[in-house]
Amino acid sequence: MVQQHPIVAFLGPKASYTHQAALDCFNESEYTLTPQISIEDVFEAVQSGTAYRGVVPFENSTNGSVVFTLDLFVDLPNRYPDILVCAETYIGVNHCLLGYARRPITDLSSINESPDSSGTATPTISAPNPAMPRTVPLTDLKHIKKLYSHPQAWGQCKAFLSSYLKGVERQDVSSTSKAAELVAQDKSGTTAAISSSIAAKIHHLDFLAKGIEDSPDNTTRFFILKKFSAHSSPSALESNKQDVTGVDNDMDRFKTLVSFSVDDDDPGALAESLAVFKPYKLNLTSINARPSGIVPWNYLFFVEIKGRRMMDNKGAVNAALRDLGKTAKSWRWLGSWESRLVR
Amino acid sequence: MVQQHPIVAFLGPKASYTHQAALDCFNESEYTLTPQISIEDVFEAVQSGTAYRGVVPFENSTNGSVVFTLDLFVDLPNRYPDILVCAETYIGVNHCLLGYARRPITDLSSINESPDSSGTATPTISAPNPAMPRTVPLTDLKHIKKLYSHPQAWGQCKAFLSSYLKGVERQDVSSTSKAAELVAQDKSGTTAAISSSIAAKIHHLDFLAKGIEDSPDNTTRFFILKKFSAHSSPSALESNKQDVTGVDNDMDRFKTLVSFSVDDDDPGALAESLAVFKPYKLNLTSINARPSGIVPWNYLFFVEIKGRRMMDNKGAVNAALRDLGKTAKSWRWLGSWESRLVR
Repeated sequence: MVQQHPIVAFLGPKASYTHQAALDCFNESEYTLTPQISIEDVFEAVQSGTAYRGVVPFENSTNGSVVFTLDLFVDLPNRYPDILVCAETYIGVNHCLLGYARRPITDLSSINESPDSSGTATPTISAPNPAMPRTVPLTDLKHIKKLYSHPQAWGQCKAFLSSYLKGVERQDVSSTSKAAELVAQDKSGTTAAISSSIAAKIHHLDFLAKGIEDSPDNTTRFFILKKFSAHSSPSALESNKQDVTGVDNDMDRFKTLVSFSVDDDDPGALAESLAVFKPYKLNLTSINARPSGIVPWNYLFFVEIKGRRMMDNKGAVNAALRDLGKTAKSWRWLGSWESRLVR
Repeated sequence: MVQQHPIVAFLGPKASYTHQAALDCFNESEYTLTPQISIEDVFEAVQSGTAYRGVVPFENSTNGSVVFTLDLFVDLPNRYPDILVCAETYIGVNHCLLGYARRPITDLSSINESPDSSGTATPTISAPNPAMPRTVPLTDLKHIKKLYSHPQAWGQCKAFLSSYLKGVERQDVSSTSKAAELVAQDKSGTTAAISSSIAAKIHHLDFLAKGIEDSPDNTTRFFILKKFSAHSSPSALESNKQDVTGVDNDMDRFKTLVSFSVDDDDPGALAESLAVFKPYKLNLTSINARPSGIVPWNYLFFVEIKGRRMMDNKGAVNAALRDLGKTAKSWRWLGSWESRLVR
C-alpha cells in the first residue's frame, strides 16, 4: 500500500515564490505539495481539510501587505472560520535570468566590449544617475533576442536590464514561473526569462545571471495556515512558561495576529482597542485596515503583536485579548507562531 | 487678452472617475481641468506649482486604500514636501452600459423573451444562487456582439452581465474611459462599454443601461491636493474657534491626515504614538501602514482623525501632534479639511 503523504496546498503555479516558501518549510519526501490557482483556493483546501497545511504570501518588504490574503482573513461570509496562522517564512526575491547558455564565458572582458552590454546603464532625463547593476552575467547574452517576465520584474531589475539587455524585446506574462515555462518550450534558445532559481531547476534551464534585482532587500513573508482543531496541540499554543515574576520569557520569540472591528458610533473605540496591548508590554509590530464588507467606510483592523496566546488562558496575550473584548465590537485570534525574522 | 484659468491636474484619462471627482469640485468655467497619466504626475504638477490643485483617488469602499497614493505621501526621496490635502469628495462608482442604441424599447417584454437576456442569471456550481440584476436595460441589447471594459468592472457587474449579455465576447482595456472611447470609434454600433456616465457625455454615446453594478455601495473617496505656502490662508487652517471650555465645536466637521514613523528598537512606540489622540478626545477614523522604503519591515503609519490643525497652534489636534513628536521618530501633517462624508 502506498503511504499517503499529508497535502500542503500553496499558491501556484509550480516554481512560484510561494512554492519556494512551501519547500522551505515542508520536505517533499514527507509532504505532497499541491499548487492552487488562487489564494482563496488555499484557504478553501485548509478549511475543508483537503490540505493539512496551506502556504500564502502575506507581505512584501517593498510592496506592503498582500490585500487578497488580508481580505480572506476578513472572511465576511464566514467561510474560513477555523483558519489559523501557525508559522511564517521569509523568502528573498532573487531574480535570475534563465535560458539556454550559448557558451561559457572564458574572457569576461568580451561582455564589456559589446556596445549593448557595457555594464553601465545609459543616463536618461528621468534617471540621470542610473544605478550600477549588482551583478554581471554568468554567460554571454548576445544570443538573447526576447525576454519574458511578470510586469513587476522589469521594474525590479532596471540596472541589469539597461546595462546588459538594452533594447531587447520584452513580453509580459502572468507570472515569473510562466515566463520560465515559455523559455523552456522555445528550442531556438534565443529567449530568456526573469524568474526564480527554483524555476531553473523545475524547467531545466541554465542560469544566465543570478541576483539581477536592483535592491538586495526585496523579501516576501509567507504564512503557513492550518485548521484549528480543539483536539490538536499545536506547538505555538503551549502551556504558559512563566517565571516567578509572571513574565513570559519567550514573548519576543513569538508573534500573534488578531483582527477586530469597532463600533462606528463609538468615537475612541479604535484608539482604545489599539491601547489594550500596552499595559501588558506587548509590542505592536504591524497594523492594517481593510474594508469590512458590511457597510462602506467600516473597517476590519489587523494587528500583529509580539507574544503568543497560551492554552491555559494565562499570559499577557490572553489578558490583552480579554481587554480587547471590552473595547472592540468583535475580535478574532488568527494564530500565534514562532518568529522567523532576524533583523 | 485671454484670461488664464487656474489649472486643476487630475488622474486621467478624460472621463475617468477622478475626472468626475474633479468636475464635482471645480467649475470648468473657472478652472482648466488637465488629465495626467499617473498619480505621481498629479503630485508633481501640484508640488512644482504648474497646477493650482490636484485630484487623486485615495480609497474605495470595497477595495480599500489606493496604495499608489499612500506611497506618494510616504515620499521617501522628499520630492513632494509641500503637498497637503485640502478637501475630499466622494463619487459613487455607477457603471453604465454605453454604446449606440438600435431602437428604443417599446415592448419591455421582448427583452425577456430572448434566451440570452432572460433577466435572471443562470445558477452554476460556483454561484448556485446568482444575484438578481438591480436594473433592466434601457434599450434592446441584441445587436451588441462585443464588450469593452477595465478587468475590475466585469466582476462588479456580474448579475447584469450574466442576465442580459451572457456569452458576449469581452475585451479587457486599460480603463473604463478607454473602453468608451473604443466603442465611440466603432461605427458598426455592435460594441458596448462598461463605463461612467461622464464618458457617455464626452464620447457622445447612448446609455444602453444605467447603474448595472451589483453593489449600490461602491464609492471612491478622492483627495484635493494643494501646495503648502506660508503666505496662503487656507480655509481649513482658520484660527481657533473655541468656546470657553476650550473645546473645538467644529471638531467633528473636519478631518486631519498625519503620517509618522517609529523607532524599531523602541517596543511600544507604535502603541504610544497611536495613543496620543485619545486624551484630546480626537476620534481616530482610519489607519494604514506602508513600507517606509528605508529598511525592510520598517513602516510609515498613516492616521486620519476627526478635527483640524489650527494656525494659531492652539486646539486639540495641535496639542496631540506635539505629543506625537515625543513618541514618534518623525511625523508630518498632511492636511486638514472639511468632511464631506454623510453617514
